Amino acid sequence: MAHIKLQGRSGKGALIANPNCSTIVCLMAATPLHRHAKVVRMVVSTYQAASGAGTAVMEEPMQQTHEVFFFNASKSHFVQYALNLFSHNAAVFSNGYNEEEMKLVKETRKFWNDMDVKVTATCIRVPVMHAHAENVNLQIEKPLGEDTARRILEGAAGVVVVDDRESNHFPTPLDVSNKDDVAVGRIHQDLSQDGNLGFTKIEYHVLIKLDIFVCGDQIRKGAARKAIQIAENLS
Amino acid sequence: MAHIKLQGRSGKGALIANPNCSTIVCLMAATPLHRHAKVVRMVVSTYQAASGAGTAVMEEPMQQTHEVFFFNASKSHFVQYALNLFSHNAAVFSNGYNEEEMKLVKETRKFWNDMDVKVTATCIRVPVMHAHAENVNLQIEKPLGEDTARRILEGAAGVVVVDDRESNHFPTPLDVSNKDDVAVGRIHQDLSQDGNLGFTKIEYHVLIKLDIFVCGDQIRKGAARKAIQIAENLS
Repeated sequence: MAHIKLQGRSGKGALIANPNCSTIVCLMAATPLHRHAKVVRMVVSTYQAASGAGTAVMEEPMQQTHEVFFFNASKSHFVQYALNLFSHNAAVFSNGYNEEEMKLVKETRKFWNDMDVKVTATCIRVPVMHAHAENVNLQIEKPLGEDTARRILEGAAGVVVVDDRESNHFPTPLDVSNKDDVAVGRIHQDLSQDGNLGFTKIEYHVLIKLDIFVCGDQIRKGAARKAIQIAENLS
Repeated sequence: MAHIKLQGRSGKGALIANPNCSTIVCLMAATPLHRHAKVVRMVVSTYQAASGAGTAVMEEPMQQTHEVFFFNASKSHFVQYALNLFSHNAAVFSNGYNEEEMKLVKETRKFWNDMDVKVTATCIRVPVMHAHAENVNLQIEKPLGEDTARRILEGAAGVVVVDDRESNHFPTPLDVSNKDDVAVGRIHQDLSQDGNLGFTKIEYHVLIKLDIFVCGDQIRKGAARKAIQIAENLS
């Protein structure tokens, strides 16, 4: 998480905590919901584009899909990237999480100034050119219906809702490539709270859960542009 | 879920409930853990190959990556498939889940004969030729350490563990293409239980959580072969 000194509209200076790309895409959608309903736990699964690994890699899937293209996942292991996917190439710690996943855990706590929020993440690289997609399962403290959640997201800065069930039209990485907004869809209540009253009682304070699917261009949401957005929102 | 009449080694006939391909891949890994520690909730995110949509679509990403290839997600909506991904093309119900996701919810309950197990799933199609990958976050009732979970999976029929943190070597769809075994890796305790004793107390009976990443060739794990495996395990 980079810290950048910026000046907001208020004219006051501010030290901006600027999260990692996969954290940014997740928090652009989760933060407005957190402000309304207090997120207590997030289970995040990422579908991360090659562009997150740098330009050379970003160009490879397009150029080499007909060849066997190997991605150096570590000093000792190579995996095919074209028409394949693999666990993120960041170093894996002794707790079983890799560095990219731990950024999501730690930066969410820091960005929300909430050391109690529980986050688990699994970061996967997929053969997509631009933009990260993330499935975010939310446990929230205050009841929040999916229609209210949709309205909150429709009104959120830097977020566009793409959630047409009838025509099966939801966000894709291609839709958001080279765009500033993060697209959110598949907004619905989480059925895994149903069918067990005992368990519902035990999880009384997290009765309502939500599931959303997010896509965002992590390069446009990168350090500089995001820091500017945060600064613009100061005051 | 198809029902097939088969005869096991015991010579006794049996009516086999044969789950959908994404359910099969998930349950091949989750069932041995469920038998030892009772799974009470699963959050599943799939990374599903084109082959699940039939041979014609399966061949397209390879042939048409340099062109704009459209996949008919519904009667009224087309999405690019090559170097893109999208929410599964199955019909979406009024509860916000699509048909593929509801199969995971209902078939898990039926296969485990446990109407109380809570499952939520998000099914996503990725530009991969063969094999489905799934991230499965498990809440279990009985304490189970990750080493024990790994040993259970290493001893499970039809499962191979690929879980080398040091060399960042974990299952990929390519590794399991045209193989019968389901590969499991990224086996680790779920950190999202940490850092909040109050919450831990409330979730006392699901103190331990696990996270695993599974890849399996859903065609080799398809109806006939899987039904035979189940029949072989009867008696």
